[in-house]
Amino acid sequence: MADKSPSSQPPRTTAAVEDYLERIRELIQKKGYARVVDIAAELKISQASVTTMIQRLDAEGLVKYEKYRGMVLTTAGEEVAKRIAHRHELLTNFLRQFGIDETVIAHDVEGMEHHVSPETFSAIEALSRYLTANPTVVAKIKKDL
Amino acid sequence: MADKSPSSQPPRTTAAVEDYLERIRELIQKKGYARVVDIAAELKISQASVTTMIQRLDAEGLVKYEKYRGMVLTTAGEEVAKRIAHRHELLTNFLRQFGIDETVIAHDVEGMEHHVSPETFSAIEALSRYLTANPTVVAKIKKDL
Ligand SMILES: [Mn+2]
Ligand SMILES: [Mn+2]
Repeated sequence: MADKSPSSQPPRTTAAVEDYLERIRELIQKKGYARVVDIAAELKISQASVTTMIQRLDAEGLVKYEKYRGMVLTTAGEEVAKRIAHRHELLTNFLRQFGIDETVIAHDVEGMEHHVSPETFSAIEALSRYLTANPTVVAKIKKDL
Repeated sequence: MADKSPSSQPPRTTAAVEDYLERIRELIQKKGYARVVDIAAELKISQASVTTMIQRLDAEGLVKYEKYRGMVLTTAGEEVAKRIAHRHELLTNFLRQFGIDETVIAHDVEGMEHHVSPETFSAIEALSRYLTANPTVVAKIKKDL
């Protein structure tokens, strides 16, 4: 699997950077564009803070930002955002199998997704696949909750 | 399970606070006391930053700190530290079943442990118990990694 080779790993990013890129990607997919005002609303922080962070992401080559024209993700930014979206989806599907409350899942996944290395991702992926294919196993585990 | 009742949940704490309490508890268990210099070494930050944080933890009633005499955890601080230690242990044992590298496990667990709610904890606990009791299932999942 490509994920397993250290050389294929994108640059290290903080949880805050990953959350920004994740939100920008979602906004672009949903609305066709991402504006500072929308990101501020999604992340519940001030527009001034968002602008500062977007300028930093631009300097780091993760976002291309032009005032009044909006922003796009660079190839590197898109790669990070996609990786986080994958982890988000994986962890959500994993926890859903146990019937955990959706609000709790959303909260836990938003935090956990930033700390899942490729190895752990692969393990949870294989585990999730097994559980999906074996509902009687899941039923047994849920009875023991 | 006591964990499931919202009223039994300790006060909300940040990942940084949880890491401090976790380290202080470990130092006291290992050496009988926790000093600023040791915490600074463990968390790889300056003694000045540690002192500032310890004063904050003291003000929040999580630590009792007396300059030159050291610090102890309050009942509330001990409760938070124990909760994190439990999550740390649970996640470590869970990931170990898949033969993930110990360095990777340590890294992922240090981050993930701060984002596991009681519901998710219970699910992973039941799952881990099932996997421990069913090594053939684990072998199948590992083959599919
Ligand atoms: Mn997410
Ligand atoms: Mn820990």
